[in-house]
Amino acid sequence: MLFIRNFILKFALVAIVLTAFSCKKENADDANTKSKTTISQEHPNLILTAQGVRDIRAQLGNIPIFDTTLKAVQEEIDAEIALGIDTPIPLDYSGGYTHVRHKRNMIVLQKAGVLYQILDDEKYAKYVKDMLMQYEELYKTLPLHPKTRSYARGKLFWQCLNDSNWLVYVSQAYDCVYNYLSEEERNTLETNLFKPFADHISMDSPQFYQRVHNHSTWGNAAVGMIGLVMNDQELIDRALYGIKDLKLDTNEKDDDGGFLNKDGKAGFLANIEEPFSPDGYYNEGPYYQRYAMYPFLIFAEGLHNVKPELKIFEYKEGVLLKSINALLNLSDADGDFFPLNDGQKGMSYYTSALVTAVDISYHFGTQDPGLLSIASAQDRVLLDDSGLAVALGIKNGKATPFQKKSINLSDGPKGKQGGVAILRNEDIELVFKYAAQGSSHGHYDKLSYSLYEKGEEILQDYGLARFVNIEQKGGGNYLKENKTWAKQTIAHNTITQNETSHFNGKYEIGSQHHSDLHYFYSENENVQVVSAKESNAYPGTEMLRTMVIIKDEDLEKPYLLDIMKVTSDKANQYDFPYYFLGQVIQTNFDYKAPKTLNPLGTKNGYQHLYVEGTAKANTDNTKFSWLNKGKFYSLTTATNTDDEILFTRIGANDPEFNLRRETALMLRRKNTKNTLFVSAIEAHGSYSPVSESAVNSNSSIAALKVILDTTDYTAIAITNINGNSKLFITANTNAAAEAKHTLKINDKDYTWVGAYYYQ
Amino acid sequence: MLFIRNFILKFALVAIVLTAFSCKKENADDANTKSKTTISQEHPNLILTAQGVRDIRAQLGNIPIFDTTLKAVQEEIDAEIALGIDTPIPLDYSGGYTHVRHKRNMIVLQKAGVLYQILDDEKYAKYVKDMLMQYEELYKTLPLHPKTRSYARGKLFWQCLNDSNWLVYVSQAYDCVYNYLSEEERNTLETNLFKPFADHISMDSPQFYQRVHNHSTWGNAAVGMIGLVMNDQELIDRALYGIKDLKLDTNEKDDDGGFLNKDGKAGFLANIEEPFSPDGYYNEGPYYQRYAMYPFLIFAEGLHNVKPELKIFEYKEGVLLKSINALLNLSDADGDFFPLNDGQKGMSYYTSALVTAVDISYHFGTQDPGLLSIASAQDRVLLDDSGLAVALGIKNGKATPFQKKSINLSDGPKGKQGGVAILRNEDIELVFKYAAQGSSHGHYDKLSYSLYEKGEEILQDYGLARFVNIEQKGGGNYLKENKTWAKQTIAHNTITQNETSHFNGKYEIGSQHHSDLHYFYSENENVQVVSAKESNAYPGTEMLRTMVIIKDEDLEKPYLLDIMKVTSDKANQYDFPYYFLGQVIQTNFDYKAPKTLNPLGTKNGYQHLYVEGTAKANTDNTKFSWLNKGKFYSLTTATNTDDEILFTRIGANDPEFNLRRETALMLRRKNTKNTLFVSAIEAHGSYSPVSESAVNSNSSIAALKVILDTTDYTAIAITNINGNSKLFITANTNAAAEAKHTLKINDKDYTWVGAYYYQ
Repeated sequence: MLFIRNFILKFALVAIVLTAFSCKKENADDANTKSKTTISQEHPNLILTAQGVRDIRAQLGNIPIFDTTLKAVQEEIDAEIALGIDTPIPLDYSGGYTHVRHKRNMIVLQKAGVLYQILDDEKYAKYVKDMLMQYEELYKTLPLHPKTRSYARGKLFWQCLNDSNWLVYVSQAYDCVYNYLSEEERNTLETNLFKPFADHISMDSPQFYQRVHNHSTWGNAAVGMIGLVMNDQELIDRALYGIKDLKLDTNEKDDDGGFLNKDGKAGFLANIEEPFSPDGYYNEGPYYQRYAMYPFLIFAEGLHNVKPELKIFEYKEGVLLKSINALLNLSDADGDFFPLNDGQKGMSYYTSALVTAVDISYHFGTQDPGLLSIASAQDRVLLDDSGLAVALGIKNGKATPFQKKSINLSDGPKGKQGGVAILRNEDIELVFKYAAQGSSHGHYDKLSYSLYEKGEEILQDYGLARFVNIEQKGGGNYLKENKTWAKQTIAHNTITQNETSHFNGKYEIGSQHHSDLHYFYSENENVQVVSAKESNAYPGTEMLRTMVIIKDEDLEKPYLLDIMKVTSDKANQYDFPYYFLGQVIQTNFDYKAPKTLNPLGTKNGYQHLYVEGTAKANTDNTKFSWLNKGKFYSLTTATNTDDEILFTRIGANDPEFNLRRETALMLRRKNTKNTLFVSAIEAHGSYSPVSESAVNSNSSIAALKVILDTTDYTAIAITNINGNSKLFITANTNAAAEAKHTLKINDKDYTWVGAYYYQ
Repeated sequence: MLFIRNFILKFALVAIVLTAFSCKKENADDANTKSKTTISQEHPNLILTAQGVRDIRAQLGNIPIFDTTLKAVQEEIDAEIALGIDTPIPLDYSGGYTHVRHKRNMIVLQKAGVLYQILDDEKYAKYVKDMLMQYEELYKTLPLHPKTRSYARGKLFWQCLNDSNWLVYVSQAYDCVYNYLSEEERNTLETNLFKPFADHISMDSPQFYQRVHNHSTWGNAAVGMIGLVMNDQELIDRALYGIKDLKLDTNEKDDDGGFLNKDGKAGFLANIEEPFSPDGYYNEGPYYQRYAMYPFLIFAEGLHNVKPELKIFEYKEGVLLKSINALLNLSDADGDFFPLNDGQKGMSYYTSALVTAVDISYHFGTQDPGLLSIASAQDRVLLDDSGLAVALGIKNGKATPFQKKSINLSDGPKGKQGGVAILRNEDIELVFKYAAQGSSHGHYDKLSYSLYEKGEEILQDYGLARFVNIEQKGGGNYLKENKTWAKQTIAHNTITQNETSHFNGKYEIGSQHHSDLHYFYSENENVQVVSAKESNAYPGTEMLRTMVIIKDEDLEKPYLLDIMKVTSDKANQYDFPYYFLGQVIQTNFDYKAPKTLNPLGTKNGYQHLYVEGTAKANTDNTKFSWLNKGKFYSLTTATNTDDEILFTRIGANDPEFNLRRETALMLRRKNTKNTLFVSAIEAHGSYSPVSESAVNSNSSIAALKVILDTTDYTAIAITNINGNSKLFITANTNAAAEAKHTLKINDKDYTWVGAYYYQ
């Protein structure tokens, strides 16, 4: 059967090729064998399409961003071809030579395939063929990869994940040269390389393949894409729905401590269903979404092209395309993704997966002209139909700026498991996380936040503890400090109770819970508010955090008002850090700097903090200013005179210098049941070492005062240095938009409708 | 007399103005009173000239960079005028309101004066007049400034230095509105403001004025420039030659510990003579040169215009213009000045003083087209004749890149007091300091160096410990850590012997000595060498340091070979730090990380270093790699097994967080007389958090071996990972270019001519 299908296909394709442009293979035959079915099976059909290739060729030289991308790719691949082919016997972890080489090969193959199609130059097809044949020779000899650290070892790489990456790319290359190869060559490759390769990462590695996890998404896409090229329905079904009739132990865990397959779900569709909320938020956060986006989208594109009847881009109310918009909104002013959970700082929408995402979103979505400005900034496009659409859009002057606004993204398959809110005003961005655990890459950071000014961190989220792909640092893999530090609650800008992390740092517990939105309003640009509640992180303790970005006309920039209300059934110690960066400029409290530095504690992340200064708060308002990258920042926080203040620095018990030696100011409130932390964070002024002038280097907030704090309401008066006062009241219980509130404070009546009052 | 002169001048100027363009003052008179003398006294004549104004007006709208500068200045000054005039009673240190306001006023006055001339709009003249009159009212009531910290208190500011800054700018404003003012107004200003102002900073403050120091240069320029505008020969002479017949105690010291007037020299010409070497190197280093350049050049421009017979730009073989070239070469790839001595990092040729320097150098020098590219980058020009010349040059497409090359700059008035060498190859820049003490801003850093890649520090010079103009940090002045840390030898990449600084950290001793050049060769781009000797820093110990930037075809980038030869008459402890930045990637030695951090010592800077790790070198070559800002770096150093290795971090005994918490790797060699430190520093590869790929992350140097080390020769074999070896031999004694050397090493004869051998 395979033989016959390929035979028909070959003739059909050649006929089409002949009608469109001159063909080097003099093998014309009757084009009438072509049928509806065989048209959809002509090659390329996976990412590039035969029609797309014709369109691209017609436009070449006339589509600047596409032309420059093509030129760069051609130069890159020509240089690789000149170097010759190397498919070494697999030996290394990430970062080692054989790992890097095979990873490079998959990219090179994919690009060479595309060049063959677009440039119609056989040298690229021959190169792809030669390398594939070398892989075929190699693969059939390979045992499991010699490195044993993975829960699912690959053959070319130390983990099936990387093997899957390889097949996702190489499927595309195979599709591009499909018709260049003889049927015998195809049979050889499919029988000895592609089919066993797909089987190894799926049938032989169910603990990797048969689950809802970004790893599995790669596996599904790999199996599915080669299935689409080979027109192998069994592989396609395995990709979409998982391995048939296989059930795994739902209690097993992977290397990262995540459950292997808690719910028994598997396959590409389940992988779309589970991790994405209806708003398109991906449960592991933007860093892993970025990683997962490529297989999601490239396989979706392939399905769209080969199996249009599946309507994959409409699946779950179009969540795949929605998720791209969510992801773009989860980046700062520079396009860097917020490092929620295990996220590497600096990863941005300039990564190639986002070129794919932006181009596909534009082409298969609503042709949002804002995406064109991001594509312009990326300065390259996919060399396929979607890249052509983007290139034409840019060329025709359709690009407009991509406007990031305040946004509230729900978490959970049904959008019922908390979420992430981003409040934006001018250059200030607040990222407030009240989501679910975030799978095995989640951190114990309920109600934590980070704050940015124009792409620079004011108060940071530490991100992950890993030097991704730097072999010298733990093979480029997660370092043990990721668990002992980065995931711990004390590493985040939220409350740590009694020096233990949320859920006791246990994934089994954390993954059963999520925070809940109390309310979110961003319509009034001058007062944007998000409020959320956490009831499970510390049994017996409730935390309600309300964060407001306020634009006060007396202040230079919008500032953050942070109200953390804690209600507990027993007395606790609360630690409340502010992870600032840069240099201390001023405090309004006297502190002692120790002669020697000692760790703050022995576990739960505390063992990694040195104490650089200690103080007692001596006024109602503790103030602290710092300078970072030429901007001044000030914290004003309402304190009790019993509050302790600590300056801490990361780096204790870090014998391999795996952590960044960064700082925090920490409030410590001991032996307290119910309490309130109220802070204002201002960005203000600037300093330039060139002009040497310090502009507006002082805080403009004169006082923060808690006027009222009851079960139902918390009221804060903010007085600025001009003597003007504003009152912010948040409804702690009934926050309905239509709720009417009347409240007497100091004999004055306040009446309003909605969750909060500000005036 | 004054009355008559002014009277004549007024008529002369008006007449000229009338011939050139319409004048609002209807007061024409006989232009024949004009004479050669009075022409040179027409106003403006100091920086702007009457002819220059005519030329500028003729070109306006047609000289893009000039037009945009003018527009920006006009917007800036219009906004200031709208705010109204404030001349508050002086109260504050640097950074405080009254300080900042008066500092701002001087700039605003100067710019408003220029706008009046160029735009011929009286509102600017009136604004200048009104503010000057307010200053006249204020100044005559002022006692000494209430802040007492300065050795020479001003009246408007806490130090005469700032008062002098003010007068340098305001003289220009006065010149611009000279003819707008009535004679009576001029008399009032000169009698009550300018003359007493000039007298206070000179006659009343000889400890400030009567010396060779950047402070005095400002004082000289201030007195001289107002003298030129007032045509007051006595002031002009006082500016050029110092206060007549005044001799000061030559042993007195200023706030910074510098001698007030060791040699009894004073005046502007002496201030050119002394601090500049014949190559144009300024003895305090580029940061203070940048600061001093403005008064040097602006007063020189005024002298050139009003007293052309002085030929000031030819003085000392044209050293003023040479010094601009030297200063530009003392900047990194981003234009940031190397922070030698007390230098603030980030100060760059984008500072306004360098706009002055570049424009003046272009106009009054040889019209070097390279300067036009810097002017283009500065994106603004002086609004005067020189700015016009630059604007026309740029407009006419004459700009070419400014090529910074390897350069050796001698130090000392005669060029005989050591120097600073910069070796450049591709993106690597070595800055090697073997200069004299550098006046009171000098550091105890004999034979120290810093290393850069494309404007980023590989091994840093700490610079100063000061938050310039940030009032909250010690009033914006030098912090005590500048002395206890930044100036100390251990803060630098050189040898500290027995935990004491060079010259015991005593300025009296250090200022009597300098290092000496051994040799410098930069002609062969693949092997650029500088070698220098220090014999006085530690009596009885000689240090000879030879630094080579080598381009080896097997290595990705040029690398640094550093040979420090120490000869001593007794056994010592030598500490040899490498102030790297960024994160530890790999070591080839095991080290212990202490649980608590303790200071390394108790004095001479050691009290500020925490010990973060300790080790014994266990091989012939100690290796260490780090990552900073996406680039990998490796140190390979030849070690004895007795050598100790320390990881240190700045920050101990720094209770106000005045220091940056940065790191070093330090070699410690104890109980040793003669010894040799040989190191190679490589920059290699890259890491991007976007692509997550680590490229060339390992050192390419396999071994460094000392093959021979005698009094006369030191020979080092460098073997790279390809197995290729090179031999570098330096002549320690006879380094003459024509010297013939024959040397047998391991039975092989080496013969060469010149200071070094490399093959």
